Amino acid sequence: MNYQKILEEIELEIQSELSFGEVANYIPALARIDPDQFAMTLTLESGEQFSVGKTQEEFSIQSISKVLAFSLAIDAYSTDLYKRVGVEPSGSAFNSLVQLEYESGIPRNPFINAGAIVIMDMLMSHFGGDYASLEKVMNFTREIADKSEIKFDTVVAKSEMAHASRNLSLAQLMKSFGNFENDVHEVVRTYFKQCAISMTTQDLSRAMIYLAFKGRDPISGKEFLNEAQTKRVNALMLTCGHYDASGEFAFNVGLPAKSGVGGGIVAIVPNVMSIAVWSPRLNRYGNSHAGTLALQLFTTKTRLSIF
Amino acid sequence: MNYQKILEEIELEIQSELSFGEVANYIPALARIDPDQFAMTLTLESGEQFSVGKTQEEFSIQSISKVLAFSLAIDAYSTDLYKRVGVEPSGSAFNSLVQLEYESGIPRNPFINAGAIVIMDMLMSHFGGDYASLEKVMNFTREIADKSEIKFDTVVAKSEMAHASRNLSLAQLMKSFGNFENDVHEVVRTYFKQCAISMTTQDLSRAMIYLAFKGRDPISGKEFLNEAQTKRVNALMLTCGHYDASGEFAFNVGLPAKSGVGGGIVAIVPNVMSIAVWSPRLNRYGNSHAGTLALQLFTTKTRLSIF
Amino acid sequence: MNYQKILEEIELEIQSELSFGEVANYIPALARIDPDQFAMTLTLESGEQFSVGKTQEEFSIQSISKVLAFSLAIDAYSTDLYKRVGVEPSGSAFNSLVQLEYESGIPRNPFINAGAIVIMDMLMSHFGGDYASLEKVMNFTREIADKSEIKFDTVVAKSEMAHASRNLSLAQLMKSFGNFENDVHEVVRTYFKQCAISMTTQDLSRAMIYLAFKGRDPISGKEFLNEAQTKRVNALMLTCGHYDASGEFAFNVGLPAKSGVGGGIVAIVPNVMSIAVWSPRLNRYGNSHAGTLALQLFTTKTRLSIF
Amino acid sequence: MNYQKILEEIELEIQSELSFGEVANYIPALARIDPDQFAMTLTLESGEQFSVGKTQEEFSIQSISKVLAFSLAIDAYSTDLYKRVGVEPSGSAFNSLVQLEYESGIPRNPFINAGAIVIMDMLMSHFGGDYASLEKVMNFTREIADKSEIKFDTVVAKSEMAHASRNLSLAQLMKSFGNFENDVHEVVRTYFKQCAISMTTQDLSRAMIYLAFKGRDPISGKEFLNEAQTKRVNALMLTCGHYDASGEFAFNVGLPAKSGVGGGIVAIVPNVMSIAVWSPRLNRYGNSHAGTLALQLFTTKTRLSIF
Repeated sequence: MNYQKILEEIELEIQSELSFGEVANYIPALARIDPDQFAMTLTLESGEQFSVGKTQEEFSIQSISKVLAFSLAIDAYSTDLYKRVGVEPSGSAFNSLVQLEYESGIPRNPFINAGAIVIMDMLMSHFGGDYASLEKVMNFTREIADKSEIKFDTVVAKSEMAHASRNLSLAQLMKSFGNFENDVHEVVRTYFKQCAISMTTQDLSRAMIYLAFKGRDPISGKEFLNEAQTKRVNALMLTCGHYDASGEFAFNVGLPAKSGVGGGIVAIVPNVMSIAVWSPRLNRYGNSHAGTLALQLFTTKTRLSIF
Repeated sequence: MNYQKILEEIELEIQSELSFGEVANYIPALARIDPDQFAMTLTLESGEQFSVGKTQEEFSIQSISKVLAFSLAIDAYSTDLYKRVGVEPSGSAFNSLVQLEYESGIPRNPFINAGAIVIMDMLMSHFGGDYASLEKVMNFTREIADKSEIKFDTVVAKSEMAHASRNLSLAQLMKSFGNFENDVHEVVRTYFKQCAISMTTQDLSRAMIYLAFKGRDPISGKEFLNEAQTKRVNALMLTCGHYDASGEFAFNVGLPAKSGVGGGIVAIVPNVMSIAVWSPRLNRYGNSHAGTLALQLFTTKTRLSIF
Repeated sequence: MNYQKILEEIELEIQSELSFGEVANYIPALARIDPDQFAMTLTLESGEQFSVGKTQEEFSIQSISKVLAFSLAIDAYSTDLYKRVGVEPSGSAFNSLVQLEYESGIPRNPFINAGAIVIMDMLMSHFGGDYASLEKVMNFTREIADKSEIKFDTVVAKSEMAHASRNLSLAQLMKSFGNFENDVHEVVRTYFKQCAISMTTQDLSRAMIYLAFKGRDPISGKEFLNEAQTKRVNALMLTCGHYDASGEFAFNVGLPAKSGVGGGIVAIVPNVMSIAVWSPRLNRYGNSHAGTLALQLFTTKTRLSIF
Repeated sequence: MNYQKILEEIELEIQSELSFGEVANYIPALARIDPDQFAMTLTLESGEQFSVGKTQEEFSIQSISKVLAFSLAIDAYSTDLYKRVGVEPSGSAFNSLVQLEYESGIPRNPFINAGAIVIMDMLMSHFGGDYASLEKVMNFTREIADKSEIKFDTVVAKSEMAHASRNLSLAQLMKSFGNFENDVHEVVRTYFKQCAISMTTQDLSRAMIYLAFKGRDPISGKEFLNEAQTKRVNALMLTCGHYDASGEFAFNVGLPAKSGVGGGIVAIVPNVMSIAVWSPRLNRYGNSHAGTLALQLFTTKTRLSIF
């Protein structure tokens, strides 16, 4: 398939959509970005990449980082992980607190905020204090992306910490049920740093290729997860990767994928490729508006949907 | 692949699991069945079938029938359907009423009970009174299964109607929000008849093959759904097909599938085959214990998981 | 105290408030009433009555009838009553379904709709089918009001039955938990007839005097409840008598009282008198706007608040 | 009335109940107390006191302190107070988080934990940092009790802070809705100090007499609240003073009252007296078992119930 041509078609078709949606405004540092940008990169088994748009522009990966932390955690904890976090979709955001209470402080899955925070708590118990665990996540990200310069944006992380009360409330509630081991503020602060990792679509597409090949990076040959662990990550991305639009995304795009409020989305075509797309304006569910449409065009054109 | 050999291996490996779990006991007519039975059938594009176990035994398809009714409804209503029912996973059963209330009487998806009941309400508005709509569902089932003798079990349907109060409560709540058009009792009664359809694994596997081939039955050549509609059904089965174990099933089996409390499960391998499995004992989530394991063994052996 | 003078002062002061608020519009038969009317009557131990306004105008007592049905039920069931209905305030209306589900189908108190419906279910189990139980309530009402002509308004009752789905949903939910004995529709239909009882402020004030004198009507000498039962009714009216404004009413008026969406309120001054007030326009909590203010003026002027 | 004789009768009748119930065990410092103790004191307008039992024994007043803080807050904020906390009963504890979320971070009343914490936040905004506000509460307590030696127990306060996560979760949730002004940990820490105030039944009965006389202490002649403010406190105690047993208490005792998990209860007979009772074992609702029964015996014997 002529992937470059397909990406260029998509870039053209998506232009008229770049002005729809709103940039996440609860993080001032994110709200300052030029909102009409677009970038898309795919990486094949061979390492070959195809790209369109601002593929050198770094953006805040935000919730996409939950996939990275979860990858580390399943490797560290194996199935013990599921004593502290579930694997089921969660329903509407409204229910987040009542579900957490009803289910005794066990978050429904690692991609809702409560779940991602408890994953960071587990990483800190396993790898040590905030600095050690953050370094572990950063180094893992650098290794899978094969790029040692990857950093997190301290301004974004601080900006989020200033509006941390809802996440702190979730963490304290988990603690009240005994599902928390480290200092609540330290964990949440470290979690925000993880969310503030900056990457380009080229970095991100490169980094996630291990999820397309059963946990083994086909370019470097390094195995980051085993086959069952990879299946778990992909199944979770498909069922829980897009907040309360996961079902809609599964239909429209038909690929395991994870989005972040920074406007990025990473999608996996099992056995074939990993795709990263970025456009800052979000639809009402908090997912990149143009990014979602671009992926939808991609699976329509390539028929690479898993369904 | 030697599918017959694989099925026979599975049948052998599953024997020790046939005594685990409980038969659904809230429907006396279902509780009378010999609980330790097992059957599995797969149907290929060519129409060729491979089977093991009691593949001539009829069982109550129960919630699997929601896939049939939904197929009829998307054809009848197109995207207007989504004004009355959503497409997102629903979280835990505990929340079913509060979510329905919070979301103003719009059920989260067509595979939870509230959603399936509103689908029947829509079928009755479109095709006419209970008898006409039920005949429509029955005839559709007979046509996709290519078997005119398929019936529903009146004893099972009556048995369910005697314990209908929770479903009636959901229906009345939807009506209070204006999301109901026909008589509540008539709709629920017809819905129970639909759930009481009896089929064998051979029937069911044959019937569902249209979902593996973009809506077109490759054996008869008839087109029941278009490609987009088929993608919608499969995406819903993957994200919402197994109650509060849908995420776990997506990981363990990795196929779009729908289970019923009668012990049946139907699974789709896109572009390849449809599989039906049956074993009456249920795990704690209400899905066939041995049936789930059999499908898990199948995708492990064949590597046909979509992830 | 010169009660007549006080009532006349109140009538004067309340004039400017008679145009505020809205008449209950979900019952067409109630919406047709001239909304700016006002009446107030108090009855003393001696039987002497003082009145102002349209005290001969009949209105629909609606939820005030819950006090009548509950009086009959505690007499019939004694403390067994509390196996099926609680005595605690209920929080916001939003929670009515989730609370009923969380508390296994036991309504929090007999003055929320679910509680009043289960009381009617109990009356029907005790006194027989809908006709017999309704007659029992009607005859009790006629006896305490000492007026044989009291009737219910069939037009209002039918009007409510046409919008019964939420109440039917509550009743079916209770049934699903085993907290319902009779036919759901029959019970709800009878409950609406009970709510449609028509009375004047003179009737209502006369009728409720037994609650001011420990269950014994000081005029006729008849004992309708014992002292403990009367205390229970009054305590419930104080804590749960005004929907989600019960706390505000307890502060502003400081008397056990029960309101109805027909615009009536009945209030009890223990050991002294019973008061009925009526004005159809409702505040945002569903209680008579002018009626509430009139009672507030009354306890301010007479210092008869219980606090 | 011969109050001393009545109290002695009660003390005798209550003996067999002193071994029922459990001491609050989540606060180790409270769990160490001899659980079978009992004390009861009433204070009349004249200042005369009648007592039985261990009336010199200090106990932790816990939630009774919410009445003190609320008295200060209504004086400081007047009706602006109700922009940040409601006055309605709250339903079951299960709903505390979901109600707070549904009602946008405004707690239902000042006697649930969320409400009492927001009251402390308000006091700190008005009177200054934790030390200043705590001193204000302590000095108010000393003044109404006419006893300068009253202190809080630092061991109890620390013991509670070690299990603060649920309260911190509530506070963070309120903050996420903008209903919080000061540092969450500082406020909760100060709140726990307030709860740890130690008093005897003699102190407490003496202190609360202002609530029986429209806000004016009849002994010292000092006016602490005006009449409307006092009515508000009493109405809240009656409707919300005993957790999820407030309705039951209103019936059984029939007085405005507030309990604490330290085993204390304070009750008000408007225009007549204030009563304090203490016995550490709690019933399943968290209220003193023997204390509740003693007050019930008191109103039965004296007929001083407000109903």
